[in-house]
Amino acid sequence: MKIEAVDLFYLAMPVVTTEADGSQDALLVRVRAGGFTGWGECEAAPLPSIAAFVCPMSHGACRPVAASVLGQALDGPADIARIAAQVEYDSMDLLQAAHTWSGVEMALWDLLGHARGEPVWRMLGYRQSHKKNPYASMLFGDTPADTLRQGRSARAAGYGAAKFGWGPIGRGTVALDADHFAAAREGVGPDVLLMVDTGQIWGEDVAAAAARIPALEAAKATWLEEPFHASAYEAYGALARRSPHVRLAGGEGAHNFAMARHLIDYGGVGFIQIDTGRIGGIGPSKRVADYAVAKGITFVNHTFTSHLALSASMQAFAGLEDHRICEYPFQPKSLAVDFVATPLARDANGTVAAPDAPGLGVAIDVAGIRAYLVDTEITIAGQVLYRTPALEA
Amino acid sequence: MKIEAVDLFYLAMPVVTTEADGSQDALLVRVRAGGFTGWGECEAAPLPSIAAFVCPMSHGACRPVAASVLGQALDGPADIARIAAQVEYDSMDLLQAAHTWSGVEMALWDLLGHARGEPVWRMLGYRQSHKKNPYASMLFGDTPADTLRQGRSARAAGYGAAKFGWGPIGRGTVALDADHFAAAREGVGPDVLLMVDTGQIWGEDVAAAAARIPALEAAKATWLEEPFHASAYEAYGALARRSPHVRLAGGEGAHNFAMARHLIDYGGVGFIQIDTGRIGGIGPSKRVADYAVAKGITFVNHTFTSHLALSASMQAFAGLEDHRICEYPFQPKSLAVDFVATPLARDANGTVAAPDAPGLGVAIDVAGIRAYLVDTEITIAGQVLYRTPALEA
Repeated sequence: MKIEAVDLFYLAMPVVTTEADGSQDALLVRVRAGGFTGWGECEAAPLPSIAAFVCPMSHGACRPVAASVLGQALDGPADIARIAAQVEYDSMDLLQAAHTWSGVEMALWDLLGHARGEPVWRMLGYRQSHKKNPYASMLFGDTPADTLRQGRSARAAGYGAAKFGWGPIGRGTVALDADHFAAAREGVGPDVLLMVDTGQIWGEDVAAAAARIPALEAAKATWLEEPFHASAYEAYGALARRSPHVRLAGGEGAHNFAMARHLIDYGGVGFIQIDTGRIGGIGPSKRVADYAVAKGITFVNHTFTSHLALSASMQAFAGLEDHRICEYPFQPKSLAVDFVATPLARDANGTVAAPDAPGLGVAIDVAGIRAYLVDTEITIAGQVLYRTPALEA
Repeated sequence: MKIEAVDLFYLAMPVVTTEADGSQDALLVRVRAGGFTGWGECEAAPLPSIAAFVCPMSHGACRPVAASVLGQALDGPADIARIAAQVEYDSMDLLQAAHTWSGVEMALWDLLGHARGEPVWRMLGYRQSHKKNPYASMLFGDTPADTLRQGRSARAAGYGAAKFGWGPIGRGTVALDADHFAAAREGVGPDVLLMVDTGQIWGEDVAAAAARIPALEAAKATWLEEPFHASAYEAYGALARRSPHVRLAGGEGAHNFAMARHLIDYGGVGFIQIDTGRIGGIGPSKRVADYAVAKGITFVNHTFTSHLALSASMQAFAGLEDHRICEYPFQPKSLAVDFVATPLARDANGTVAAPDAPGLGVAIDVAGIRAYLVDTEITIAGQVLYRTPALEA
């Protein structure tokens, strides 16, 4: 097959707020080859990601992503790896390229799976898609009472695990944060796995993060996520040595395999969280999963958007029976729900698995795209470089 | 003062080729505040960088760069650092933001220098702008004979140092590369510093890079630059241990301070090369220079574009007398020449220094911008988010 078309669709909620909720917009990718269609989703910032696909070349090491993709042969996983290497090299100086390519890469796997009639995880070498324990991903409330209510809602929804993130943590006192952690634990009850995500709030300040560890231990938190800047490996390493019980988690900011490896080797994380929509897609995510296995730590997906992104992010560790925790969008905006015709529903036991169906196993509802589509046009020197493509084509 | 306006200008040569020459296009930044004007230059990929400035917010941690800049107070260097921290945090998930912000940051320093009547390097705490030994930055020829000619041209132009990059190196045999290194040395003569840049050609393949070290030693190369992917710290470290005489150089890909620090600490480079137009501007560049001093290695600027970018990149190590090597655009395209009214000319001894003049000390020739200006327009939902601004305003 030959990659005939790559179409990018920018979706947004009517109102986008400063809430740390990644489901407020989306950039979907549709790829066409050999009569088949594949879908993927970039994370995040649709407009710069579109620009990275269509922009004029700056020089040989700063070419648009499109130049490495359109017209390429696509007959197996090796082709995807070959195109990935070309994007990495030819778009070396185009920072945004990794995010753009991530969505395209997913779509190529999806398309290949449809052409072959097999799930992506099988093409990755897994024999089975093991059930995962999804955690409800929520934001901390403004007050401990709000956090308590959030926790109860996750418990009422039957989740075996819950993660609280962002909000006021790290912005007030250690005691206030401790109240939030205790409220979260009280809300979810004693048997639910509890995780905490602080969204890089402490930069590189190890002492500020370490001051919260006793309260996290008291709340029996499974992990502390993103205490520091994504590249602050030294700070991660220092805190990891001071926190034997509450392991660190991070990695969502990794936009290539090496960054994830560094966070494991230098940062000492116990959980490596990969956003398939940022790291370059499913191929490098699988490399991280293999590396996590070799290093005896746990792979976890990072997903705060749609079930298309969820399926893509689950492929990399679908076959790893012992890596059971899975981020699961708990309260996504309607945008992230409406374009997915076949969501990855939890079964009676509350577990979820990557679909045993061709490609990513997620059917797209075009009407759900149309409802949120943002008309976009980029013109350079009188030529239209990008215009929102037709949904039916 | 208050930051009143930030205008972005996309320039391009009429024809842009796949040559690894970063001067084929440019993104200039003009900032206005308190009746003063400052100029900066982003490196690279103008369109995605524009998009990162103007794009709609995706969520609280993925805001456009403009949201952190426009309307901010600008009364001293601390304000620039404050805005930088806000960009880093609020645009955390916007990968391209670092490149966009870099040019804006430079322009803020330039403006502040004009307002205070002092050079940027003085605001950074330096008492003097020391003369540097500029190296002619060239590409390897297609054949060793071409490389020889290139070397002779650098020598004829009176350079005390020359760097050869990219071209066929690493794409053929070890013996062919050795011929190029020998030709480069023969061309520049025995007394000129010779550096070699291989543009990440070996990915993470330490053995392939190590095979070239004997020929580099024979050619008395000062450094081997970018043998590997920018994040391949382990490969850098392994090669550094195998090459005590030819030190490694790298860092141009760093888009934050931590990445440069990692390349020093984990990668063992002897020369840390910083592109001020990528790392987030002059502030983080200065942090790297301070760190290089503390670690006993050498800071070098990475500049393959205009003398505006050259001046900006020299500020960070202007006061470091012992860090003498300076990348100097040798054969830039006319685009990078024509908008600079006051280039940083070499003196009779062939040396060059950051100007002892307010701000970056580089006067802009607006006619030289107009000649290469690329008319650009971005429209979202019927609203023009970006249109090439007026040059006179």
